[in-house]
Amino acid sequence: MAQGQDDVQALIDLMARLPGLGPRSARRAVLHLIKKRGQLMRPLAQALADVADRVKPCVNCGNIGTGEVCDICQSEKRATGEICVVEDVADLWAMERAQVFRGRYHVLGGTLSALDAVGPDDLRIPHLLERIGREEIAEVILALNTTVDGQTTAHYIADQLEGRGVAVTSLAQGVPIGGELDYLDDGTIGAALKARKSV
Amino acid sequence: MAQGQDDVQALIDLMARLPGLGPRSARRAVLHLIKKRGQLMRPLAQALADVADRVKPCVNCGNIGTGEVCDICQSEKRATGEICVVEDVADLWAMERAQVFRGRYHVLGGTLSALDAVGPDDLRIPHLLERIGREEIAEVILALNTTVDGQTTAHYIADQLEGRGVAVTSLAQGVPIGGELDYLDDGTIGAALKARKSV
Repeated sequence: MAQGQDDVQALIDLMARLPGLGPRSARRAVLHLIKKRGQLMRPLAQALADVADRVKPCVNCGNIGTGEVCDICQSEKRATGEICVVEDVADLWAMERAQVFRGRYHVLGGTLSALDAVGPDDLRIPHLLERIGREEIAEVILALNTTVDGQTTAHYIADQLEGRGVAVTSLAQGVPIGGELDYLDDGTIGAALKARKSV
Repeated sequence: MAQGQDDVQALIDLMARLPGLGPRSARRAVLHLIKKRGQLMRPLAQALADVADRVKPCVNCGNIGTGEVCDICQSEKRATGEICVVEDVADLWAMERAQVFRGRYHVLGGTLSALDAVGPDDLRIPHLLERIGREEIAEVILALNTTVDGQTTAHYIADQLEGRGVAVTSLAQGVPIGGELDYLDDGTIGAALKARKSV
């Protein structure tokens, strides 16, 4: 590509590093941005700079926000004595969208992984244990993904919490609401059968 | 979502307007960016601002570049008397990647479309006709997409160029290199059969 397009190529290369975009879709996105310079490209540049400047992880729970401590941790209403432990901020957002949990969160920032050499101290597990006493927590809800690493992490945390006088629970497993059996994997069907309830 | 996340939500909304990204993938991209603040988020904000400031369409051919006239139009080497007419800058890039065309381009900026009320003056067709004389063009190669609108546009341009003493050609249609017949649509197979050559 010609010399004057170095800027454009640099932008495409950066865009292609976003999850879900490859070189081709990054090119398409950049051309779209160039066409919508005023309505989309400049606002996006500004929004990125704003978020980069203002947003930071909450020192308490690991959620992202604009202050030292996030809004959820600041809210007295949410001091219900329950902490919901999630892997990632995306999971926290998913819980918040469901509007069913009124307590606080703890974002681990990943899962334990022998392969990737992620140990308890690489996650925010020590900080979780420290919060238990300080915030008068009665229940820790483990809302970790049902992957091998997620479940390993859940077991590790449950072990650590033993004898600390807190209830440790995890999300129920079963058939998703609106889910069709035909499209479910065997593991889910097995778990749903094992946890069957009388109607 | 909590108040402090307004910035983040605004960024997600902007990202979701990019082609190929929806609300969910935009969220994922934004969380990724926040994690890679220094390596990715700030450079991306800067690259977007740079391109928004510097890059503009070439007044001659509609390609994008950093000057009034793009590098291809400036290059004397590319004054071969051939103009390749494409719909979009993405198509120009595709031609350039193939490294088979050494002439200049003309980017229409779309196709004629009765449905979307796009007429010849909305595209860069008048400018193309004006270039024919000025740049001593001997051949106009129509490299438009083989959609209905693309082909309508190709015919319209061919009509306009009649009697102007320029050869008007279009890209050959047929089986793509590496293409398997089994995966090709009937139209392509039909076109390939009609344009068969002796070996």
